[in-house]
Amino acid sequence: MNSTFKYTRLSKDDAACLLVDHQSGLISLVQDFSPGEFKNNVLALAACGKYFKLPTILTTSFENGPNGPLVPELKELFPDAPYIARPGNINAWDNEEFVKAVEQTGRKQLIIAGVVTEVCVAFPALSAREAGYDVFVVTDASGTFNEVTRHTAWARMAAAGVQLMNWFGVACELHRDWRNDIEGLGELFSTYIPNYRNLITSYMARQ
Amino acid sequence: MNSTFKYTRLSKDDAACLLVDHQSGLISLVQDFSPGEFKNNVLALAACGKYFKLPTILTTSFENGPNGPLVPELKELFPDAPYIARPGNINAWDNEEFVKAVEQTGRKQLIIAGVVTEVCVAFPALSAREAGYDVFVVTDASGTFNEVTRHTAWARMAAAGVQLMNWFGVACELHRDWRNDIEGLGELFSTYIPNYRNLITSYMARQ
Amino acid sequence: MNSTFKYTRLSKDDAACLLVDHQSGLISLVQDFSPGEFKNNVLALAACGKYFKLPTILTTSFENGPNGPLVPELKELFPDAPYIARPGNINAWDNEEFVKAVEQTGRKQLIIAGVVTEVCVAFPALSAREAGYDVFVVTDASGTFNEVTRHTAWARMAAAGVQLMNWFGVACELHRDWRNDIEGLGELFSTYIPNYRNLITSYMARQ
Amino acid sequence: MNSTFKYTRLSKDDAACLLVDHQSGLISLVQDFSPGEFKNNVLALAACGKYFKLPTILTTSFENGPNGPLVPELKELFPDAPYIARPGNINAWDNEEFVKAVEQTGRKQLIIAGVVTEVCVAFPALSAREAGYDVFVVTDASGTFNEVTRHTAWARMAAAGVQLMNWFGVACELHRDWRNDIEGLGELFSTYIPNYRNLITSYMARQ
Amino acid sequence: MNSTFKYTRLSKDDAACLLVDHQSGLISLVQDFSPGEFKNNVLALAACGKYFKLPTILTTSFENGPNGPLVPELKELFPDAPYIARPGNINAWDNEEFVKAVEQTGRKQLIIAGVVTEVCVAFPALSAREAGYDVFVVTDASGTFNEVTRHTAWARMAAAGVQLMNWFGVACELHRDWRNDIEGLGELFSTYIPNYRNLITSYMARQ
Amino acid sequence: MNSTFKYTRLSKDDAACLLVDHQSGLISLVQDFSPGEFKNNVLALAACGKYFKLPTILTTSFENGPNGPLVPELKELFPDAPYIARPGNINAWDNEEFVKAVEQTGRKQLIIAGVVTEVCVAFPALSAREAGYDVFVVTDASGTFNEVTRHTAWARMAAAGVQLMNWFGVACELHRDWRNDIEGLGELFSTYIPNYRNLITSYMARQ
Amino acid sequence: MNSTFKYTRLSKDDAACLLVDHQSGLISLVQDFSPGEFKNNVLALAACGKYFKLPTILTTSFENGPNGPLVPELKELFPDAPYIARPGNINAWDNEEFVKAVEQTGRKQLIIAGVVTEVCVAFPALSAREAGYDVFVVTDASGTFNEVTRHTAWARMAAAGVQLMNWFGVACELHRDWRNDIEGLGELFSTYIPNYRNLITSYMARQ
Amino acid sequence: MNSTFKYTRLSKDDAACLLVDHQSGLISLVQDFSPGEFKNNVLALAACGKYFKLPTILTTSFENGPNGPLVPELKELFPDAPYIARPGNINAWDNEEFVKAVEQTGRKQLIIAGVVTEVCVAFPALSAREAGYDVFVVTDASGTFNEVTRHTAWARMAAAGVQLMNWFGVACELHRDWRNDIEGLGELFSTYIPNYRNLITSYMARQ
Repeated sequence: MNSTFKYTRLSKDDAACLLVDHQSGLISLVQDFSPGEFKNNVLALAACGKYFKLPTILTTSFENGPNGPLVPELKELFPDAPYIARPGNINAWDNEEFVKAVEQTGRKQLIIAGVVTEVCVAFPALSAREAGYDVFVVTDASGTFNEVTRHTAWARMAAAGVQLMNWFGVACELHRDWRNDIEGLGELFSTYIPNYRNLITSYMARQ
Repeated sequence: MNSTFKYTRLSKDDAACLLVDHQSGLISLVQDFSPGEFKNNVLALAACGKYFKLPTILTTSFENGPNGPLVPELKELFPDAPYIARPGNINAWDNEEFVKAVEQTGRKQLIIAGVVTEVCVAFPALSAREAGYDVFVVTDASGTFNEVTRHTAWARMAAAGVQLMNWFGVACELHRDWRNDIEGLGELFSTYIPNYRNLITSYMARQ
Repeated sequence: MNSTFKYTRLSKDDAACLLVDHQSGLISLVQDFSPGEFKNNVLALAACGKYFKLPTILTTSFENGPNGPLVPELKELFPDAPYIARPGNINAWDNEEFVKAVEQTGRKQLIIAGVVTEVCVAFPALSAREAGYDVFVVTDASGTFNEVTRHTAWARMAAAGVQLMNWFGVACELHRDWRNDIEGLGELFSTYIPNYRNLITSYMARQ
Repeated sequence: MNSTFKYTRLSKDDAACLLVDHQSGLISLVQDFSPGEFKNNVLALAACGKYFKLPTILTTSFENGPNGPLVPELKELFPDAPYIARPGNINAWDNEEFVKAVEQTGRKQLIIAGVVTEVCVAFPALSAREAGYDVFVVTDASGTFNEVTRHTAWARMAAAGVQLMNWFGVACELHRDWRNDIEGLGELFSTYIPNYRNLITSYMARQ
Repeated sequence: MNSTFKYTRLSKDDAACLLVDHQSGLISLVQDFSPGEFKNNVLALAACGKYFKLPTILTTSFENGPNGPLVPELKELFPDAPYIARPGNINAWDNEEFVKAVEQTGRKQLIIAGVVTEVCVAFPALSAREAGYDVFVVTDASGTFNEVTRHTAWARMAAAGVQLMNWFGVACELHRDWRNDIEGLGELFSTYIPNYRNLITSYMARQ
Repeated sequence: MNSTFKYTRLSKDDAACLLVDHQSGLISLVQDFSPGEFKNNVLALAACGKYFKLPTILTTSFENGPNGPLVPELKELFPDAPYIARPGNINAWDNEEFVKAVEQTGRKQLIIAGVVTEVCVAFPALSAREAGYDVFVVTDASGTFNEVTRHTAWARMAAAGVQLMNWFGVACELHRDWRNDIEGLGELFSTYIPNYRNLITSYMARQ
Repeated sequence: MNSTFKYTRLSKDDAACLLVDHQSGLISLVQDFSPGEFKNNVLALAACGKYFKLPTILTTSFENGPNGPLVPELKELFPDAPYIARPGNINAWDNEEFVKAVEQTGRKQLIIAGVVTEVCVAFPALSAREAGYDVFVVTDASGTFNEVTRHTAWARMAAAGVQLMNWFGVACELHRDWRNDIEGLGELFSTYIPNYRNLITSYMARQ
Repeated sequence: MNSTFKYTRLSKDDAACLLVDHQSGLISLVQDFSPGEFKNNVLALAACGKYFKLPTILTTSFENGPNGPLVPELKELFPDAPYIARPGNINAWDNEEFVKAVEQTGRKQLIIAGVVTEVCVAFPALSAREAGYDVFVVTDASGTFNEVTRHTAWARMAAAGVQLMNWFGVACELHRDWRNDIEGLGELFSTYIPNYRNLITSYMARQ
């Protein structure tokens, strides 16, 4: 059967992870997720970057101002990641150092998350699409003011061919097969999916 | 009048039904439907598969682990259906046995539902689209963590040409005409649409 | 320690179950529950009445008119229950036959559910309170137009000393101890709580 | 059985209806109901006042200012009702003319609805309670800014012994028995409850 | 500036109005609108059909069964409209009489609304698109089970080039200019938009 | 008619206004109101304190820490108000300086708002009730984490006899009669109720 | 890497701002935003037009009728802007004066917001797309009846290639780099984003 | 001023903490909180019990069945706490061992949380009230099926004099004064309130 659709699947050998502006001040603007949910999703995505050994780039916007520093957990997870403290560029893709860091990964699939969704995520996502990259925006690890703004940003990015995914979908598409590492994936899910941890607890209680 | 759109209608002679990972553990992760609503929709879709005699394939992911066994109702409904217990492939379409079972149906329209929406449904849906199939994802018989994830998965699948439908729409498009079997369709609706059952009860009370 | 509160606990030896106006027409007015959820809760409460052998009374309001007949499932469950088809009394407690049936149960705890909440449930609940009964209204087996009306009815009944409970709370308070009948209570929960059925499915798979 | 609760039932021989400040300008402040829903409920309550021949009092607050005139439908329904255009009293009970009109009804049960709930309804409701009246506030024919304000007003009024009801509950408690006037009550419901009109349409189609 | 988009504007000289299966029984299945809101929107759209003298076609599905008769208001508004009581075709476009009636209008813009959205509206909408018509589905005069189903149907229709509009947008696009008939359009809005009626009431009070 | 209820009405001669911990850091915890709505309500209440010349007390909790300073607007509005920067007392009523400031107002009606609702508002509200004050908590000028916490705090305070009001209700009850100052009250409403400002704009346009 | 997507970025040298029908009467129809939120967003967008010195056009529809005058704040902000009081054209793009004013800006990027979304914004947006303009609709500064209508309008505009953005996204895309004017952008955000103002307050308190 | 209200304040010297049935299976029934939010709140309350050295009692219901074991985190936090695995009593207060453990704490204030709210929390809460204890139910660390059930349980407990609080309110009322231990309370908040952690991060960045 002829097909008109090519399934661009995330591959851990071709993906890089860009965490944009998860800063202690900016996160106080996020009200389209509860704080506990949002923190869990961002750290889960970061843990995926770590677990799948994806080249990960951290960047902040005007971090010495009210936007505040990057949340410490991300720095601690990626002490050696390229860290670009943008002094002014609102679109990270306008920052040469940032674009060079992306290019140096040699990766063509960019997984992007950040705060706020319609600016710090959408702008570099649209620029990366224009530069020919396959772009995957992680919607539940990107936060913004409210649901109207979220859905507005989704529409603009989807129209540009950005693939919208949640962190669990990213983990599953990268992992491909449980047997690649049952404990590792199980540990990742157990840490960041409380109901999955409960499944494991109940399951282990009857081994 | 010239037209640019071809209406690909579900046909009971050309559709197959793929029920992916409705497992007792995984379903505890579903929170974008109330449990009672989700169970009703899944069993309604399964009943459609049975009623329209669609070749139906059951598959599970790592069922001996915390994901748990397939819910018993589906096994009981399709004792003879191909049953592929995938030991590790997260995307069912990566499992040769599964793809072979699909090909053996000889059907080009694949009706897919499962848990969770953005992985166990979206991944095989995108793979099937790439393989040239017409794909119909049943949104109210597919469950996931929350509405953000659901809408994210819908966007990714719709961009790939997947047709999103609910189980009632699937039943109606397959049935085409009440007169093909008034009792049969009436019984299906009465069983899974409580308000339709009440319409029948009121109607019959005044015959 | 002196106490100012007496805990009036439902007891299967002192409770009766009044199912008021769950009629096929009236239920079409219910929009504060999804139809599937509401049907499940009503049948679950009825199953409790059956399981705990509570004297159960069925009544309808003007059932030969548009309100329609009682839903067949309740008649089938309680073929021998007092069945009062009220020709006109909107408040069931204004119907002598109904009040006599209640008195004949010899029970002082009245479990009431019905459609709609603020009339067919609240009116007899308030009348029964005035008559000195302990009244327990089952909120998730009583339906009405919308949430504003539901909360309005709850406020009026709570102010009259009516105890608001859901069907699961009724079942648990009547049962007191799992060991009274593990299979029976397990079967009740498995039938009407899909996620509990999944817990049992997972649990049994590893015995 | 001794009882500590007295059920104060609305009686068409002892109730009066106070419609407070349903003005064309003020109603634009109402956002805790959709406009169509709110108009239907207010006219339904007014129709009850008409149908049960309750002495009805209309009043407005500062109607020559931005609050605007009373909505024409209420004037047309009650051309002869006492009409008190309060030049300044925000609490209608501070207006002697209004209180005198209430006293002249000789009724002790006051059914109150208006805009906005926490002021134009709650203030006279609390004053009337202090004056010894039984007060019934019709929650779905009273509108205000948002749900926080609505629930705040409900709490204040319920604490004062105000009985919260919806217009349908008022109609049913006043009517007591279908047989008092089946056509009349059926017509009232058919006009203001679209789903009840559909029940009647379906019912009549099979007579 | 070159443009890639052609704005297909509704024109009262080229549009026809298809009201599909607004039947007294089927409407009881609608829970994605409150009953009052839905009735108002359907009658508002019908009033547009009347006011703009659009050829209007009425059709029902299996109306002698539990689906029930067409709501009487639509028959009364269009006594002379083609009325096709489909004995069995679930997709109205499968009914030759219906398609012939559409063709006889000579109109190429089809405004469609009905119950339920994903079947009685989506199926003929997709068929009409395939037949080369410009199709406008009126989303707030089409009802279905719940929001998941609504958004699923919208996605399927939008992917087929169906233009989604609300009844007010249809009225405005057909009317083009207030000066064509200020009273007429004002009366239409005053009747079906309560807040607009209040604007007119306040406005007239200060002429 | 004998009455069991005494209507405790806010009086501008007997009320004081306590604004507790509206601090720039703490407000980032508020997610049960949108930021724009919450800011508007807090400033509206403060404007009432100013307009009705109520003795107003400002207090903060540990303002040199992460809780941050009082929002500047409140300091600017009440440069001369008692300002108690509590170094540690979480319950303002545990701070002698605060209680003395309250007593020095000579007022027996305390209007309280603050952040967060269940601590910085509820604790002093309960303490003040215990000290015999009439306490009015302004629910829409008090913010907290989420709606569960809000309703939990409301229940605890209502059970203690705290009167729950919104800022508009406070303004109306204090003002009593438009004629006391039409411009002043109109200006207050126009500033903080956008739809009321639009009513005035439309009204003035036709003088 | 070859790319199929061109990122059309808002540029302050190529964008014009069209504020359509934010009239005191029409705004009373808006119920998909709370009044306070909507007013803040509209004024924030207008402040962007002012700050980035975008040629701005104001227009109203039938302003001498019930729709009411333009809200005074917009006139005060743009005393010299082209002001087109359309006597009847519902679609501003049908008004020659309006289109000429757009052409005279010499700008090819049109930022549009207005009331209501599906008519006063969507119609000129679709016309402008047809005329070859790049169109950016500001979703949170455009209001309408309800969310169904909003999402319907978004779908129609997105299908026409309109870019959906919120006012904050517009500001960020126009500003490009904080260093272009830190105080100016900070002041804009501080004025219209209460939580950002709190970040600045906390930040400044520790300089 | 005479007072009718006594403020029963939580005191760390008089409170005990009862964690009832937070079991890996039962938690899968909880859908009135998102899983991440609920886990955070339960662990936060447990951390309070640890931090304020409250005698803490752990109990489970029928833990060898489908309800599953207690979540491991609670056992790890309280290795030496009385641990009562109830073999059958649904109401923990029916278990002598449990009641004896409560009595042995010598505490009169009982802080209770558990799963599900209306049974495992409400039943012992009502029994404890009857036994003369002051009972504080932690609403955001108690989970159940849905919001209808939650509010039903709250109403029943509030009517019995149970004080409803959230975990943050419990922590603040026990702590009384920041200065008792700034680091300790700050660490507790930083761990379980992500936005408070961000406040501390921003604050520390500018020391």
